[in-house]
Amino acid sequence: EKIDQALQGGDAFMPATTQRKFRIAAGDFVEFLILPGLIQHLSLEARGVMIEVVPLPATNVLSTMLESGEIDLVINTPMTLGAGLRYEQITVIELVTMIWAREGVPPGRFPLELYLQRPQVMIELHQRNGNIIDRTLTSLGLERRIGALVQNFMAMPVIAAQTGYICNLPKLIAQVFADNFGLSCHEPPVEFPQPELVAYWHTRYDADPGLKWLRERVKQSIRT
Amino acid sequence: EKIDQALQGGDAFMPATTQRKFRIAAGDFVEFLILPGLIQHLSLEARGVMIEVVPLPATNVLSTMLESGEIDLVINTPMTLGAGLRYEQITVIELVTMIWAREGVPPGRFPLELYLQRPQVMIELHQRNGNIIDRTLTSLGLERRIGALVQNFMAMPVIAAQTGYICNLPKLIAQVFADNFGLSCHEPPVEFPQPELVAYWHTRYDADPGLKWLRERVKQSIRT
Repeated sequence: EKIDQALQGGDAFMPATTQRKFRIAAGDFVEFLILPGLIQHLSLEARGVMIEVVPLPATNVLSTMLESGEIDLVINTPMTLGAGLRYEQITVIELVTMIWAREGVPPGRFPLELYLQRPQVMIELHQRNGNIIDRTLTSLGLERRIGALVQNFMAMPVIAAQTGYICNLPKLIAQVFADNFGLSCHEPPVEFPQPELVAYWHTRYDADPGLKWLRERVKQSIRT
Repeated sequence: EKIDQALQGGDAFMPATTQRKFRIAAGDFVEFLILPGLIQHLSLEARGVMIEVVPLPATNVLSTMLESGEIDLVINTPMTLGAGLRYEQITVIELVTMIWAREGVPPGRFPLELYLQRPQVMIELHQRNGNIIDRTLTSLGLERRIGALVQNFMAMPVIAAQTGYICNLPKLIAQVFADNFGLSCHEPPVEFPQPELVAYWHTRYDADPGLKWLRERVKQSIRT
């Protein structure tokens, strides 16, 4: 087919002139992590490229949507998605613990006692990140206090800034909010696992130069 | 039944001492608008009250979830939800147009020419807010340029701050980001509709003093 021919890499991808829309499925924190740097780059170097970020579809339809081209890339923590997909690591998620700066917690590791005593703003439990923390604490026989359960990563630092509650955020996002909202960032009081963030695509598009370019830009944008 | 007796208002609700969890279904922008002020109040005056915000379920199950008590309150723009529900207005959503401050757009109304020429960061089209703007522009024979489509309200000002793209945000949220991210806020170049934000609950809980208290706190928290 014509589509498949094009996908075999016959056509070069020229960022400066190509008109193309990419659709990326990702959770809200990934969107926030990747998009500002990526869009900034596009606005300078690839003005015909448009990015749409959509919520993560159910796991059982992801593979089909990647194969059909309905979605170009899925960015998430590692999942079991079956045959026909490839992935590569985008970054590793390192968590930091935040509290309002007026608390005067010294730089460095967050004190465990305060971590367990002060209420925390958490992502509601359907989402995975909260589970990493709670699973680790449980394995140590510890438990944190729930102050509020939210659905949105960005709501956490804003609430923490107004209440003195603790929140835990990926380091790369935390730094944006720390300065702007008067929060201090610390290493967590115990070592949490550091999950990978990976990009999935369908093998059908292995040779698509545009998709290769996009994945490279996604990785670059995190370091911005 | 015992539950129904309690719900008829026999038991007073004492914020300072009651242990109770409320589950609110709301979109991400509502969470961001309401929660910081609400949680701040609870952390001072109602330390036993815990709030969980969950995503909006499908419209056809909302009424059942409110009746069963699985969700206490739904906060959204007006919907058609059938019998058994009551609602009251929480606030009215007024949009403002934002761009980086270095653009030097004078205070007041945003220039229409720049609004149509500069790419915009928008909420992806499944969500309702983008449609208000585009519907209004279309009715005037106008069209704005898509710079990026995101799923998350909070990603818009961050991207706008890094790219010079335009974004449109509810006024009450915009002001938080304007100062922190170097953006200026303006009246939109044309008049957009100002949708209501309403809280829905089930008539079964009309007499529940805790739920009355919660609705009042939600309304108050927006003015914080």
